[in-house]
Amino acid sequence: MTLPMSLDVNGRRYRAPQRPLVVVCVDGCEPDYITEAITSGSAPWFAQLRERGTCLTADCVVPSFTNPNNLSIVTGAPPSVHGICGNFFFDPDTRTEVMMNDAKYLRTGTILAAFADAGAKVAVVTAKDKLRALLGHRLRGICFSAERADRVSKADHGVDDALELAGMALPSVYSAELSEFVFAAGAALMERERPDIMYLSTTDYVQHKHAPGTPAANAFTGMISRYLARLDAAGAAIVLTADHGMNAKTDAFGRPNIVYLQDVLDAAYGEHATRVILPITDPYVVHHGALGSYATVYVEGRVAIDDVRERIAALRGIDVVLSREAAAARFELPPDRIGDLVVVSERLTAIGSRQSAHDLSGLDAPLRSHGGISEQRVPLIANRPAPDLPERRWRNFDAFDLGLNHLA
Amino acid sequence: MTLPMSLDVNGRRYRAPQRPLVVVCVDGCEPDYITEAITSGSAPWFAQLRERGTCLTADCVVPSFTNPNNLSIVTGAPPSVHGICGNFFFDPDTRTEVMMNDAKYLRTGTILAAFADAGAKVAVVTAKDKLRALLGHRLRGICFSAERADRVSKADHGVDDALELAGMALPSVYSAELSEFVFAAGAALMERERPDIMYLSTTDYVQHKHAPGTPAANAFTGMISRYLARLDAAGAAIVLTADHGMNAKTDAFGRPNIVYLQDVLDAAYGEHATRVILPITDPYVVHHGALGSYATVYVEGRVAIDDVRERIAALRGIDVVLSREAAAARFELPPDRIGDLVVVSERLTAIGSRQSAHDLSGLDAPLRSHGGISEQRVPLIANRPAPDLPERRWRNFDAFDLGLNHLA
Repeated sequence: MTLPMSLDVNGRRYRAPQRPLVVVCVDGCEPDYITEAITSGSAPWFAQLRERGTCLTADCVVPSFTNPNNLSIVTGAPPSVHGICGNFFFDPDTRTEVMMNDAKYLRTGTILAAFADAGAKVAVVTAKDKLRALLGHRLRGICFSAERADRVSKADHGVDDALELAGMALPSVYSAELSEFVFAAGAALMERERPDIMYLSTTDYVQHKHAPGTPAANAFTGMISRYLARLDAAGAAIVLTADHGMNAKTDAFGRPNIVYLQDVLDAAYGEHATRVILPITDPYVVHHGALGSYATVYVEGRVAIDDVRERIAALRGIDVVLSREAAAARFELPPDRIGDLVVVSERLTAIGSRQSAHDLSGLDAPLRSHGGISEQRVPLIANRPAPDLPERRWRNFDAFDLGLNHLA
Repeated sequence: MTLPMSLDVNGRRYRAPQRPLVVVCVDGCEPDYITEAITSGSAPWFAQLRERGTCLTADCVVPSFTNPNNLSIVTGAPPSVHGICGNFFFDPDTRTEVMMNDAKYLRTGTILAAFADAGAKVAVVTAKDKLRALLGHRLRGICFSAERADRVSKADHGVDDALELAGMALPSVYSAELSEFVFAAGAALMERERPDIMYLSTTDYVQHKHAPGTPAANAFTGMISRYLARLDAAGAAIVLTADHGMNAKTDAFGRPNIVYLQDVLDAAYGEHATRVILPITDPYVVHHGALGSYATVYVEGRVAIDDVRERIAALRGIDVVLSREAAAARFELPPDRIGDLVVVSERLTAIGSRQSAHDLSGLDAPLRSHGGISEQRVPLIANRPAPDLPERRWRNFDAFDLGLNHLA
């Protein structure tokens, strides 16, 4: 089956791959993780890309969380188009707080599925299983997670030997190995299946604990460097970006700087007058305690939204508070799925709901997290030159555009 | 001579010290330098302060540069009061670009000089000599720099044996030892002279090259930890803050992200229509190439300031552009010493003037710098508890207020 010359997906045109394209989303990859690993000598493949590759600094989607950004990358579109605006949201239809992992929340198709439908061989490997259903939505191809690599079948995942493929034991969901598994499986897939398009997505377990330039962070980036060198040697074009950056959210003693927003609002307006939603929330919160730099607030009828907005804006540690409309416009979010207010905290501060609702006992290192504008700058890197790049604001969700339309 | 109960300086009241007070300004001390050094086990004195000390995250003055912030700390006031709004400025009287090291630019007195006049024994040790004249303005006491520790006299500097005092050879101006000398001299001064008030100010040579958590950064913070433990053991109250934070200003490959603003404006308006001033400029630019995240712009008569403002605001990498009046109000700056426009770049971007004017050949590590709002958050730490701290926006120039008025 011959691929068409190009495909239109979500209003953008993508050329068919001339060689295998691998798009990598490194979860929580603050640009300095790569810079520091290069400087320390831990990442020789990245180092030599300076001579022959491409490096842009792009903006991710705010909220700078995993689900919205992974879906933006694979749809080439912001959340206003694809609908996934958090890991977690308040469903106004059912008036319940629910995970946003179900494909029913997805409002458009992916570049991956479109190319597969057009006859391309497509493979997706993700670290956590929570992303698999969204990334693999209507995808005819290979799609599995490292987390559940022991439970794959040809019928459901396109392979029945994920563990053998990666050559690794099933990793813990809280480990650097969960991400290494993604690369090990991806490199083996490239060598065995030679997919036309592959999407690899890791988890930020390491980045939540370790700052750029520290030994564990350099070792992790060095691991990525080795696997990408292997994919490079197999002839793939590689585009690497991130779902979001990562910053310390602590004081100098390492104690978290947290605005417990639901406590503040309950004290001001009483219980049940407002509802603080933390869209970072997911079932795996041990490494960040569900504390990020972004929250949405629903305000009940008898309280004036503007009053709540002004009260939150006056809190120390808050960067910006926007109305639903202003937030939807500025961050390209679906207005029906965010609160009456969107709240972003400054770089070193996280937002909590009630103090009693956050279990910080699992934090065995000073809190590092994301979600805000301060984590919006991410790398957009390719292993080939891009000779005629347009001058524009690059986004992480331009990864397929860069890889298919601009690389030499 | 008995000290008065309290002194009023620049509209604020300070109690006389009950025990020796040491205020330390660690140049470029992003809070994470301390957090990461604690985590790595390199800074045990800081680690045990968690049990008995105080840690606030404070805002420094923007521009987040050395001179404005050191002067704010020792006057307890913003640049609108003390007049020092850069390391470097355009003197509208003489129409020349000049260093701001001369005490003639200082518009008010320091807390140090006021206490010395009231009979306190006061000592100041600074790393670079450029700050000595400003910090020691009208100060009757000890005041010398590590940089010129071989050229001190009792008459001019209050000591004639600075090298013997520190027990170190004269350090290079580009070295970690220049800062270590400040602490070595300070600790020896405390043991020999027991000043009532001491101010120690380091240089950010290490921070410009090394990210928090890297071996060189941890070693540097470990050095500080050891000397502060010695000052602590001598019975001093210690307050530590910073003149500014520090961030990478590069892409993921480590190449600097720079907006060459004078080139942009020359292309738009012609040469000499605008004048870009980089107040980070000082004679010691090897480690940062005079590249920071803050610039001021003077606009000649025939060009509309608003047009220039809008053009700069539209540039990628620019965080905020303010008129003289707006900048003076927001950042508490002297309006007669800033340009028609104040320009701040985002966290990972620096501002240059003309590309040809910056020599980056001395940069032997990826550019890290400061100057912007992104470097405004700094630690404010004490080695004693502060039981009744008011809830307010803390500033680094509250260091003497914290040390004299709030510590147990």
